[in-house]
Amino acid sequence: MSGKTDSGQVYHRECTGAALETVKQHLDDQDITLFAGCFCPFVQRVWVALEYLQIPYKVNEVDPYQKPQELLDISPKGLVPALALNAFNPPRALHESTVILDFLEDLAAKSTHRTLFPPSTDPYAKALVRLQSDHINRTLVPAFYRYLQAQDPEAQIAGGKEFHAAIQYLVELFERAEREVGGTGLWAEGGDLGWADVVVGPWIFRATNALKHYRGFEMPQGKKFQAWLARLFEHPAFKKTCSTKELYLDSYERYAFNRPNTSQVANAINSGRGLP
Amino acid sequence: MSGKTDSGQVYHRECTGAALETVKQHLDDQDITLFAGCFCPFVQRVWVALEYLQIPYKVNEVDPYQKPQELLDISPKGLVPALALNAFNPPRALHESTVILDFLEDLAAKSTHRTLFPPSTDPYAKALVRLQSDHINRTLVPAFYRYLQAQDPEAQIAGGKEFHAAIQYLVELFERAEREVGGTGLWAEGGDLGWADVVVGPWIFRATNALKHYRGFEMPQGKKFQAWLARLFEHPAFKKTCSTKELYLDSYERYAFNRPNTSQVANAINSGRGLP
Repeated sequence: MSGKTDSGQVYHRECTGAALETVKQHLDDQDITLFAGCFCPFVQRVWVALEYLQIPYKVNEVDPYQKPQELLDISPKGLVPALALNAFNPPRALHESTVILDFLEDLAAKSTHRTLFPPSTDPYAKALVRLQSDHINRTLVPAFYRYLQAQDPEAQIAGGKEFHAAIQYLVELFERAEREVGGTGLWAEGGDLGWADVVVGPWIFRATNALKHYRGFEMPQGKKFQAWLARLFEHPAFKKTCSTKELYLDSYERYAFNRPNTSQVANAINSGRGLP
Repeated sequence: MSGKTDSGQVYHRECTGAALETVKQHLDDQDITLFAGCFCPFVQRVWVALEYLQIPYKVNEVDPYQKPQELLDISPKGLVPALALNAFNPPRALHESTVILDFLEDLAAKSTHRTLFPPSTDPYAKALVRLQSDHINRTLVPAFYRYLQAQDPEAQIAGGKEFHAAIQYLVELFERAEREVGGTGLWAEGGDLGWADVVVGPWIFRATNALKHYRGFEMPQGKKFQAWLARLFEHPAFKKTCSTKELYLDSYERYAFNRPNTSQVANAINSGRGLP
């Protein structure tokens, strides 16, 4: 299903491919409703976590440009992801992907006993994961949007370098964790999906389709990096939440040409402010 | 003790007042060394948490403009706060105030059994605190620096409004937590120091001295807000880490006049980038 923006561009209102199949399996009422947008990487974080942590949920896909009142009621700016917690009366709600991830982790600790953090009880191992996550949120994700929205060639070259450097620094943090605490997440061979994989995965995935298509971006070719990438993209919890390539190319076209739109993320980057 | 910057300004190298007394009590070797800078609010966060959680530590005050090699060895950009964890060989280290706060919380859960989170085991109560903290880090703190560094009158007025709005939204989040989970931190009468109090406290304190002095900023006058402010500033763990007013006025003078300096925070704000 697709719609048109004010400027007449076609956009997707619904997931495609594997993600669409997953949506269809999560239409029944549950204690948790995930308000989702089909191409939103912040939503995908939460979605992957719900899958991995095996927490029951319902998906409510909303039209990102025509936000329904039920979303506005629970998320101040109408931003997705948002969770409605239906078991409470009046229902409770949460927004902000990183806040929701911590909430789901705490919920799983009490129910499904699964975790995205290292199995070790060493607080230092957990801190190294938080350091990875902090770098992703404050440097890597903004660099992705600056690169994608850069218009003149010089800014695009600078953007590419900046995004590449952000990935390299993440790799350094992964290697440090491998050296100091035996590895975190999927970076180490034999590892399972981890917190930082979930936090960065949606942008890494979009870098291999939208950034590659619109900016000619190439991922680092190192064997170890490529092996991590393959493990991430093939992980069931991640794969289940991915739409087809076409959806991402369509969705990021207007970012790549920096056309007027109503994305709060695009506006924030253009104005030099932090992400909403 | 004070020094001179490249531009000849005098700056403080050491805490004053109550904070100086606290430093003097923490000069013996411990498993944890806090690398501190006397006026840095990010350092104060960690320091208050160490005090509240009753975790033994040593303080190593560094000259912010002449960083010692032992700091550069453990903190990539030489930024404080940084923790050296001396019980390990080779010693481990952490930087980034929010990462360190989570680490100290996890450490306390295993040792002193104190916590900055609500005593409730309801993951939702914890999530509301994370939501407060997310707002402080991504909106309130950057707004503080934009306001302080704004030079022309219009930008100062806009900066003041933005900072004021950020405080108001934090109050809304505090009120929501009071309504939904019976309150978090010091906001509710009878509450104890909480995570968001620690995360925001250093900037609220500097708003009452540096922002008031250089921008004429006034805190909201509401009775409930003023009562929270009083509880925060009088809390022993907070009060112990505060220098005298003069130190803050001296330290923020060059921010207020946006003079060339080597602050990575000031440079980031001036360039429209996220905080380092």
